[in-house]
Amino acid sequence: MIYVTRKSHFNAAHRLHNPGKSDDWNKEMFGKCNNPNWHGHNYVLEVTVAGEPDPETGYVIDLGDLKRIIQKNILDKCDHKNLNLEVPFLEGIIPTSENLVKAFFQELEDDIYEEAYGSSELHSVKLFETERNIAEYRPNPRI
Amino acid sequence: MIYVTRKSHFNAAHRLHNPGKSDDWNKEMFGKCNNPNWHGHNYVLEVTVAGEPDPETGYVIDLGDLKRIIQKNILDKCDHKNLNLEVPFLEGIIPTSENLVKAFFQELEDDIYEEAYGSSELHSVKLFETERNIAEYRPNPRI
Amino acid sequence: MIYVTRKSHFNAAHRLHNPGKSDDWNKEMFGKCNNPNWHGHNYVLEVTVAGEPDPETGYVIDLGDLKRIIQKNILDKCDHKNLNLEVPFLEGIIPTSENLVKAFFQELEDDIYEEAYGSSELHSVKLFETERNIAEYRPNPRI
Amino acid sequence: MIYVTRKSHFNAAHRLHNPGKSDDWNKEMFGKCNNPNWHGHNYVLEVTVAGEPDPETGYVIDLGDLKRIIQKNILDKCDHKNLNLEVPFLEGIIPTSENLVKAFFQELEDDIYEEAYGSSELHSVKLFETERNIAEYRPNPRI
Amino acid sequence: MIYVTRKSHFNAAHRLHNPGKSDDWNKEMFGKCNNPNWHGHNYVLEVTVAGEPDPETGYVIDLGDLKRIIQKNILDKCDHKNLNLEVPFLEGIIPTSENLVKAFFQELEDDIYEEAYGSSELHSVKLFETERNIAEYRPNPRI
Amino acid sequence: MIYVTRKSHFNAAHRLHNPGKSDDWNKEMFGKCNNPNWHGHNYVLEVTVAGEPDPETGYVIDLGDLKRIIQKNILDKCDHKNLNLEVPFLEGIIPTSENLVKAFFQELEDDIYEEAYGSSELHSVKLFETERNIAEYRPNPRI
Repeated sequence: MIYVTRKSHFNAAHRLHNPGKSDDWNKEMFGKCNNPNWHGHNYVLEVTVAGEPDPETGYVIDLGDLKRIIQKNILDKCDHKNLNLEVPFLEGIIPTSENLVKAFFQELEDDIYEEAYGSSELHSVKLFETERNIAEYRPNPRI
Repeated sequence: MIYVTRKSHFNAAHRLHNPGKSDDWNKEMFGKCNNPNWHGHNYVLEVTVAGEPDPETGYVIDLGDLKRIIQKNILDKCDHKNLNLEVPFLEGIIPTSENLVKAFFQELEDDIYEEAYGSSELHSVKLFETERNIAEYRPNPRI
Repeated sequence: MIYVTRKSHFNAAHRLHNPGKSDDWNKEMFGKCNNPNWHGHNYVLEVTVAGEPDPETGYVIDLGDLKRIIQKNILDKCDHKNLNLEVPFLEGIIPTSENLVKAFFQELEDDIYEEAYGSSELHSVKLFETERNIAEYRPNPRI
Repeated sequence: MIYVTRKSHFNAAHRLHNPGKSDDWNKEMFGKCNNPNWHGHNYVLEVTVAGEPDPETGYVIDLGDLKRIIQKNILDKCDHKNLNLEVPFLEGIIPTSENLVKAFFQELEDDIYEEAYGSSELHSVKLFETERNIAEYRPNPRI
Repeated sequence: MIYVTRKSHFNAAHRLHNPGKSDDWNKEMFGKCNNPNWHGHNYVLEVTVAGEPDPETGYVIDLGDLKRIIQKNILDKCDHKNLNLEVPFLEGIIPTSENLVKAFFQELEDDIYEEAYGSSELHSVKLFETERNIAEYRPNPRI
Repeated sequence: MIYVTRKSHFNAAHRLHNPGKSDDWNKEMFGKCNNPNWHGHNYVLEVTVAGEPDPETGYVIDLGDLKRIIQKNILDKCDHKNLNLEVPFLEGIIPTSENLVKAFFQELEDDIYEEAYGSSELHSVKLFETERNIAEYRPNPRI
């Protein structure tokens, strides 16, 4: 099994806030990440596809195709945006890194399956909120 | 001459917007950086002090003191904040990296002069808005 | 399954030495890492917790809690210390990266299980002795 | 299970070209990576060995031995070389990162098994063609 | 004085070879960098502009303009190319990092002067051939 | 003027201690860096040579020669050593980064002047004690 990874970047504003809870609960739970005037990050995104390489090209997936899918499905929707207010596929989701990687995975998996060679498929989505805080979604741990 | 640098990090939201100009002018000039719903960055800040080391300690400035000054004068005021709305010393300033490094320099220089050894003084303030976009303020280019 | 990682740093002195063997054996086996006057490293530590996010917070574990646990259980005991002489939980252990990651895992797992959401638990401990030499302990390879 | 990783670097020229296909097919498929005058990369290579540490040394594998094996089996053959023309063990292989990691794995596994402690063995070979494009070969996903 | 830097990347093949000298001289002088089958690098390029920010925009130079100039004048001509054979403005130049930064500077300075605010101008061009080997051209050391 | 930089690494133990002062003064002044059982760092060293490139080679200095000089004059003496006890040219010096860069400069400058082209000479020595704490010695600020 071969794993191919493409790294991307985007910048966005967000705040951690559960609208079903009181302001006090949110402030206590999320601290400075709950700031109503927002804060933001330079997010680093790693998308990994697992499979066998096409013998004609040596590619599990053409990284140009993978770059285009990430651009269309994630970066065009999230870069220089407010993740709480402006991204339709994140509606109703508290934008923690944990929730973001799961939502990104769902947004990417069909197009990647379409473009990748044979039965190759999306393996994991990893997000660096900062250099020190990282989340990864890998729903099929066996591969 | 010896140059001592301390690197720090903070996360903040901002938008580029000149309130003395029309919305159209701002949108044309600043593009996606003008998004009224904000975006944000993991800023990396490098503060450099120039001087001679104290013969008793070998320090141009105790990096613990420098860390404390940066924490109090910059990080406590900017981290997890909105740079357009919540930072008194940035009021009236368009928060480009160019303007930020100049404002940070002014905010830091007196306390650093106070703590550094002999005639050592603040030499430069460098800010990485992203890994690829960087600004530095170095008012005295001869040292 | 979601994996949440917190990256930390500490500086320490150590030497590689098996006290049950002769000095010659140690010198031959460990080379310059056996220097009786010690050497040291800027260790980078990555702690990964695996589980499902709490629907109320979107957190597998509050990274503030994780940071506090790593600080108390590892950094307060190892930072600016001699790993052969001053860390009780490393007594009797040759401080190779392999042995350190296993010892750190045991030191962290109970407190992390306590704080993480639901059945989330410590998944791996990774240690960069240098940028080029890395060890990871992941006792349950299936998740 | 403990995973020990050694990171290395080499520089090489290559082009992506399938000699069994027409020039037009190659140009369409590989774009600028098909340039007949070559291009090149600073490759970063991560080799990971999995196993139990030797109780006498605390080593899964002596990283000095691992470094020597990587030097002899990969770096001496690939560094400052043309991967399409000058590396015998890559003959007949389109030098995509996917194909390189598989070929490197086969080149390394016997010598590593020989030197590592007990039943420890090569676990994965990861190659960074650029900071953003990465491939990994991990044939036994269960460990 | 404020210094604004934009970081870029390109991949290229080259060899170090002085065609006015014998093959033996070249082999002795340049060693493995003289390989007639080429080798290559992931070059990292840092372009720094010095000046005062425009009071209306807060920009010394719009980094979008700077990015476009670097793309047109350097990356479009050098990325995935052979620096000895395919870059007109490098003809007759041994492509050491020292010679490249000087040539890049000359290729960039007029367009940057045109686009930057007021009397702001190109200050330096820095090139990382590898992470460990770096050259910078800064013709006016006083600013 | 062209600036050529070579980056190197070494690991060492040290403590900050002024033997002419009391233990209490040292403990108060240097805090945990004064630990009598030592601590250590992965030091990163950047050595920069300034000058004009040799027209025959395109080199300000052959980076192979520069690497060899740094190896002989610094790394062989400091790597895996105790900087307070085992390095003759550091005797009597408190090993702060400030004092180290000055001592390294003196140790390097003659051999570099010997090997570099024409009147090229050592320009600066920069030392990263950690990723966040950095010192540089640049005695001739005009170039």
